[in-house]
Amino acid sequence: MENDPLSLDEIVRRVNAKAADYCALSDRIWAMPELAFEEHRSAAEHIAMLEREGFRITSNIGGIATAFVAEYGKGGPIIGILGEYDALADLAQVSGVTEHMPTAKGAPGHGCGHNLLGSGSALAAVALKDALANEGIAGTVRYYGCPAEEAGGGKTFMARAGVFDDLDAAFCWHPAVLNEVLTKSANAAIGARFRFKGRASHAAASPHLGRSALDAVELMNIGVNYMREHMPSDARVHYAITNTGGDAPNVVQAFAESIYSVRSPHLPNAERLFARVKKIAEAATMMTDTSMTVQIIGGCSNVLPNKALQDVMYENMRRLGPPAFDEADLAFAEEIREAALTEDDVLASVAPDNISLKDVFLHDGLLAMPAHEGCDMGSTDVGDVSWIVPTAQCQTACFAIGTPFHTWQLVTQGNLPAAHKGMVLAAKAMATTAADCLRNPEIITRAKAELKQRTGGLAYRCPIPMEVAPEDLRTKAV
Amino acid sequence: MENDPLSLDEIVRRVNAKAADYCALSDRIWAMPELAFEEHRSAAEHIAMLEREGFRITSNIGGIATAFVAEYGKGGPIIGILGEYDALADLAQVSGVTEHMPTAKGAPGHGCGHNLLGSGSALAAVALKDALANEGIAGTVRYYGCPAEEAGGGKTFMARAGVFDDLDAAFCWHPAVLNEVLTKSANAAIGARFRFKGRASHAAASPHLGRSALDAVELMNIGVNYMREHMPSDARVHYAITNTGGDAPNVVQAFAESIYSVRSPHLPNAERLFARVKKIAEAATMMTDTSMTVQIIGGCSNVLPNKALQDVMYENMRRLGPPAFDEADLAFAEEIREAALTEDDVLASVAPDNISLKDVFLHDGLLAMPAHEGCDMGSTDVGDVSWIVPTAQCQTACFAIGTPFHTWQLVTQGNLPAAHKGMVLAAKAMATTAADCLRNPEIITRAKAELKQRTGGLAYRCPIPMEVAPEDLRTKAV
Amino acid sequence: MENDPLSLDEIVRRVNAKAADYCALSDRIWAMPELAFEEHRSAAEHIAMLEREGFRITSNIGGIATAFVAEYGKGGPIIGILGEYDALADLAQVSGVTEHMPTAKGAPGHGCGHNLLGSGSALAAVALKDALANEGIAGTVRYYGCPAEEAGGGKTFMARAGVFDDLDAAFCWHPAVLNEVLTKSANAAIGARFRFKGRASHAAASPHLGRSALDAVELMNIGVNYMREHMPSDARVHYAITNTGGDAPNVVQAFAESIYSVRSPHLPNAERLFARVKKIAEAATMMTDTSMTVQIIGGCSNVLPNKALQDVMYENMRRLGPPAFDEADLAFAEEIREAALTEDDVLASVAPDNISLKDVFLHDGLLAMPAHEGCDMGSTDVGDVSWIVPTAQCQTACFAIGTPFHTWQLVTQGNLPAAHKGMVLAAKAMATTAADCLRNPEIITRAKAELKQRTGGLAYRCPIPMEVAPEDLRTKAV
Amino acid sequence: MENDPLSLDEIVRRVNAKAADYCALSDRIWAMPELAFEEHRSAAEHIAMLEREGFRITSNIGGIATAFVAEYGKGGPIIGILGEYDALADLAQVSGVTEHMPTAKGAPGHGCGHNLLGSGSALAAVALKDALANEGIAGTVRYYGCPAEEAGGGKTFMARAGVFDDLDAAFCWHPAVLNEVLTKSANAAIGARFRFKGRASHAAASPHLGRSALDAVELMNIGVNYMREHMPSDARVHYAITNTGGDAPNVVQAFAESIYSVRSPHLPNAERLFARVKKIAEAATMMTDTSMTVQIIGGCSNVLPNKALQDVMYENMRRLGPPAFDEADLAFAEEIREAALTEDDVLASVAPDNISLKDVFLHDGLLAMPAHEGCDMGSTDVGDVSWIVPTAQCQTACFAIGTPFHTWQLVTQGNLPAAHKGMVLAAKAMATTAADCLRNPEIITRAKAELKQRTGGLAYRCPIPMEVAPEDLRTKAV
Repeated sequence: MENDPLSLDEIVRRVNAKAADYCALSDRIWAMPELAFEEHRSAAEHIAMLEREGFRITSNIGGIATAFVAEYGKGGPIIGILGEYDALADLAQVSGVTEHMPTAKGAPGHGCGHNLLGSGSALAAVALKDALANEGIAGTVRYYGCPAEEAGGGKTFMARAGVFDDLDAAFCWHPAVLNEVLTKSANAAIGARFRFKGRASHAAASPHLGRSALDAVELMNIGVNYMREHMPSDARVHYAITNTGGDAPNVVQAFAESIYSVRSPHLPNAERLFARVKKIAEAATMMTDTSMTVQIIGGCSNVLPNKALQDVMYENMRRLGPPAFDEADLAFAEEIREAALTEDDVLASVAPDNISLKDVFLHDGLLAMPAHEGCDMGSTDVGDVSWIVPTAQCQTACFAIGTPFHTWQLVTQGNLPAAHKGMVLAAKAMATTAADCLRNPEIITRAKAELKQRTGGLAYRCPIPMEVAPEDLRTKAV
Repeated sequence: MENDPLSLDEIVRRVNAKAADYCALSDRIWAMPELAFEEHRSAAEHIAMLEREGFRITSNIGGIATAFVAEYGKGGPIIGILGEYDALADLAQVSGVTEHMPTAKGAPGHGCGHNLLGSGSALAAVALKDALANEGIAGTVRYYGCPAEEAGGGKTFMARAGVFDDLDAAFCWHPAVLNEVLTKSANAAIGARFRFKGRASHAAASPHLGRSALDAVELMNIGVNYMREHMPSDARVHYAITNTGGDAPNVVQAFAESIYSVRSPHLPNAERLFARVKKIAEAATMMTDTSMTVQIIGGCSNVLPNKALQDVMYENMRRLGPPAFDEADLAFAEEIREAALTEDDVLASVAPDNISLKDVFLHDGLLAMPAHEGCDMGSTDVGDVSWIVPTAQCQTACFAIGTPFHTWQLVTQGNLPAAHKGMVLAAKAMATTAADCLRNPEIITRAKAELKQRTGGLAYRCPIPMEVAPEDLRTKAV
Repeated sequence: MENDPLSLDEIVRRVNAKAADYCALSDRIWAMPELAFEEHRSAAEHIAMLEREGFRITSNIGGIATAFVAEYGKGGPIIGILGEYDALADLAQVSGVTEHMPTAKGAPGHGCGHNLLGSGSALAAVALKDALANEGIAGTVRYYGCPAEEAGGGKTFMARAGVFDDLDAAFCWHPAVLNEVLTKSANAAIGARFRFKGRASHAAASPHLGRSALDAVELMNIGVNYMREHMPSDARVHYAITNTGGDAPNVVQAFAESIYSVRSPHLPNAERLFARVKKIAEAATMMTDTSMTVQIIGGCSNVLPNKALQDVMYENMRRLGPPAFDEADLAFAEEIREAALTEDDVLASVAPDNISLKDVFLHDGLLAMPAHEGCDMGSTDVGDVSWIVPTAQCQTACFAIGTPFHTWQLVTQGNLPAAHKGMVLAAKAMATTAADCLRNPEIITRAKAELKQRTGGLAYRCPIPMEVAPEDLRTKAV
Repeated sequence: MENDPLSLDEIVRRVNAKAADYCALSDRIWAMPELAFEEHRSAAEHIAMLEREGFRITSNIGGIATAFVAEYGKGGPIIGILGEYDALADLAQVSGVTEHMPTAKGAPGHGCGHNLLGSGSALAAVALKDALANEGIAGTVRYYGCPAEEAGGGKTFMARAGVFDDLDAAFCWHPAVLNEVLTKSANAAIGARFRFKGRASHAAASPHLGRSALDAVELMNIGVNYMREHMPSDARVHYAITNTGGDAPNVVQAFAESIYSVRSPHLPNAERLFARVKKIAEAATMMTDTSMTVQIIGGCSNVLPNKALQDVMYENMRRLGPPAFDEADLAFAEEIREAALTEDDVLASVAPDNISLKDVFLHDGLLAMPAHEGCDMGSTDVGDVSWIVPTAQCQTACFAIGTPFHTWQLVTQGNLPAAHKGMVLAAKAMATTAADCLRNPEIITRAKAELKQRTGGLAYRCPIPMEVAPEDLRTKAV
């Protein structure tokens, strides 16, 4: 197909053409870190860029002020590219240094690289749009501005609002330390807050008049620990105590609170398990003569991988090759590893499967597709999208091998040239794969058939009940 | 009052006249030990003796075949004297020896001296009857044949049936190692059996399919242990696990069972506490996805002491003096202490208050009435009688100091001369005090006023629900 | 004894002479509330007053900057009068109103009336000094400036430093809602902080690599709750969880902390029980593969009441009569009860024994001495003084009946005329009783004999180990 | 290879020649069921048969009177064939009926088909011996008489004694409902008995003097249930409470006991986990002031499958075909399913992988080799043999599909013609595969290389410590 505007070479050309603009966007977002649900300026920056490119904007999706959809084109296959832009608390950090240098006490920072994530996805969407626009090709491209990933579920609310329903394929990526197509599933998750109320009393003088909410929290935990033997091995239940009812031992604790996360490779199993956990909480109130309320504070579906899309994306990444890191990139990566990363960090980065990479400072290859899919025990709100539309994800090397997530070490690398290079590669991987879907609808057909097979024909059902508002997640993630 | 047929001297004379017959009855009962609810021959022996004395017999009281009332006289004050005759499992023992010599493997024995208790009370009733009969004095004397004390509640069922309702005063005693009027209260108690049902599964291959009834038992216990901080200090809750669901660790336990006793100085408090325990049991089923049934297996009211009667009884015991133990009695007491009782046994017998008695082999004095009433943490079904009618109790020295209850050491002394002497003293103490009530109705008036004050005007309410039959107690005492 | 300078009338005269000055001191302290160990200005105010009166000051007692002793006189019996002046967090409140009106957010306030306590005791000491000084009577009077009562143990450290060792009698009081001589014992107590350290891990991805410090805290609590059945009924153990290891359920908690208080009517029992608690904590680390450190953060001895002194104090209080509350005092008491006190508050104030007082607004009588001593389940560092020297305490009506301690309702009444009246009465009760001891050494002899009998001849042993510094108590009270 | 004496056809011929004798042996063993470690007559019957065939007998292996080795031949590859012959308690049952008909109350029965297992293996060994003997072929064949499989470890003790050390290949089988080569691993396991000792006391009167051994058992369980979150998902820990310290709630339990099984796919992991469990038990004694002893009561290594041998065995089974069940066999299978097997039994028999077999009464095919190995969560003492020598196992259809192990339904089929047919097939599968090893040493070389790779070069280490004697396992299996 000569001069095919959707060919890899053409898409690469278009990405390269606008790469500098979107690297600049990423750097601006890096410099204005905003917490989950508070990404007003970050969303506005994205919207401004995309409007300028001719995208139509729909804001305030699913009741979230900082969620938006930017759309271009019409008819044909509809491609979604997902972006994020929320930061993390207490991670403000000077750029490009190898020691911990907060820019402000307690201020947020982009500890998960979502500045790159949002901008790289935008770059992919724009390049794809440019290809469509140039030739008048049918098809629609959408950029999804997805807030509050770190609060456990921006996309879940967006999914609940139906904005992914008419998509034909969706793409996402994450800045990381390795180049690879993501093939694993991830657990479905439900998060809830349990608030117990008892009756205070002096613990020495009249303990028999007190009813301890803290006892209820403890008995709930005990009940759950007994349940562990009798739940599937692949499920996970974990908790934190978020209010102990005070620091004074001489007062029977009248109030106490805990947060639970329940995970399973299958949402219905997670829901069943959560129902058991809730029943245990009720039982704990009966044991202690206290009362309780439950509040769902998050939820996401398990990820349904899509091999049809992954195979195409892998082939594209193979052809694109790794980011072209230069001496300076490598030098800084080596420096930060020496100064601020541990051997354990490095081993955690590469895992046993890729142990040979432990002596590499920046990943300059592409991981092979694994024989088995596997399941990450963690959870992501991309899961909800993946239940609605065939979805593929990759990650690219933006940071020195060994850089842990949610650390100043990651923040300090977030606007360096190496990060830009990883981001641009991700944009190319997504845009070329999306282009392949547009010019070869058979891929979408196969991907949809696979999705249907994986869902067993079950329609997507949002794990967050309608009565839970995005507000409710602000306080705590799953 | 000259030649007063109800005077102490006259009553003593009458008791002495028939003492040998009733010591012989006691020895026969000793030799035919029958377990709780099975005392058919023992009851028959008592009935035969009392019928011969002219008592009218009503059998099968409160649904218990071995409970009976023997009555003599008419009108006037009605005096009740309570007897027991049940034995204990696995305590068959040769008489009069100082080592463990079972007469038959596993056979029962009179480890609590109820052979003496039943016969001594009968002797008191008969002596009292003789006094009434001789002079045509108005008044009624009743002997209550109370079975199954060791199963936790013959008298409770009899009380439920109303057979104590028209009494004016009741007397009881217990063979023991010391001579004293009993002044303490004793706890109200409720006993129940909790049966949990889960679902078996192979504990290695499919533990997630199992629902452990043993987990439920454990979680109930945990819940109760958490409750301890928040219940009155003077209450007691204790348990035994009576079925663990099998000895195989590789099977999730589908069945398990525990027994709980709940005690408090006040029955309503015991009931409230029991309701909390029951709720904890229900909660344990919710935590484990199991089910449960509760069965009440016993209950008795707290003892309401009656100082008005105690004072009279104390004065009589003071005048009667201790049993006249002879050299042979003392020699055997010394021998058995040397051979078969420990220093701890002796200290437990005499308690700190009477520590000077620790060097005595058979008690030859009378304990003074204590300044404060106190409360025994244990329980007795005499409690139920004491809520209905003013009740006084004493104990007398029948066994060597240091002899523990429910042991072969007690059994072996149960038909010796010393035991007979203690029994005869008890008969005199009860009969003379009852006689005082008959000739001085003012005592009864005072005693009833005191009872009313102690109940706070509350009517007796049986702690065992109507739907629980005596049968249900056979399996286990509180 | 005519014109006896130590007679009740003379002492009363001398207290009245300086009452206004010390009410003013109390009001100044009320207006400068300082937390435990931080009472620098409050201590300075007291010192200034007492220096002006001719007392010799020794500061910085037992390593506490705000602890001091003020002494006057020489030889003869040495009388100690104990004062306190620390405030409580978050109780700043406008005076004389019937609604909650904080003067500053989070600021401290005198929620326990220690402004009155310190000033009233100083008034007693000064009046006593005046009596001695005037006539050149032999004898020494000391005012003890005792900080940090609310942090659980200023006096304990002072006792450890030996400053009470040569006293012949000690007096103390507490502002309250009733007039009475305090006769009850109070529990000995030990407080400790348990810090657990585990290993963090992702709770979904690698829980098997984590070792939960929070599990250790919970298992320690469970172990203690199981121990409850097997410890004396009159002991108390209670706890607070002061660090849960974070609010994120998806991280295995690497750190957690709890605080325990252990109490018993007898210090050795409290110590034995604390040793069991500590062993349970160690066991919890073994169960969870974590480690732990224990830090003692407080301790005080049980109170040994002294009937010899109480009887004298009671006779003086009887002669002194209640505070002379006027219409305005009563009107405000009625007003605040209506507006801000509940029926439960009132019942808690008067307890079943004095139920008739529930309809009174300000106590205008004197409670009779109870027949039995009893034991308060709470604890006070006066206990340590009471082990060293015969000690008597009273409380006087300073606040409306129903006013709970540690509330804004108490703060708002802390500088009103009624409070002043109660304080002056307490000063008189202490000073007259101390004067009786000076003129009648036989009282001291009897009091010391009683103390000796109560200690069983055991010397005072400080419950806080030498290696624990006052600093260590700042963080948390027992 | 013409007239190859080790060819499948020749081996089949030799098995058929003696099949009747060994079916008769099996029937005799079926009729004399003996419990683990008590198989004196059963072992003697096997020994007699094998001695008659010319085998050399070594008895009393590893300290077990009923363990023996029977050997024939010399030099060359040494082939081991493993037999078992212990029965199970309380399963005596009339043969060939479809209802529960015990032949004697409480008597043992062959509920696991070990009568067939021992005789079938003997038949294989004898056929192989006949082939060697006939032609003077080099090589040694051994029959291992392995007792006490049901008590959890006869072979483990034999392995500890070194009797498998010089083998070149080992074969085993199990009578079952399906024909298949066994390919799964099975967990390593350690079993132990924990005995706790406390101090009795009256639970109402003096609970504070008691130290509850039952509390220790419960707290150990709680500790383990907390550990579950922090152990590998593929490990298993389960327990039974085997002594609760008595049925009387009013006595603090002075003695209690539990049994734990710890399993893991890797023995060192099981050992590490067991060490944690043991530490938790010690911690439970510290929490309760009790003491404890641990007794190892069983242990076995995980099974190391050997694909090299399995492939050969599968090929032979494919060629041998299924047992030739006739109408009568099928009729009885149908009958017993109707009368005495449930739908759940059938589903448990065939598992989801072979669901189509649920409508079959007797398995007349051969299951395909699965793609993945998998791991049975249960355990077997064949694991220990498999660590020392390449080992292959099959199972054959001897019973109606749906027949559960350890039931009278299995016993009643244990000497029927269908069972004989399955047994003879197993003998052929083992003997032909062993013959292949003898004539093609390359198989052994490959099998040994695989074993070495699977052990990672680690030498076999017996999971049962030297100080544990076979005696110690009599009481309870893992």
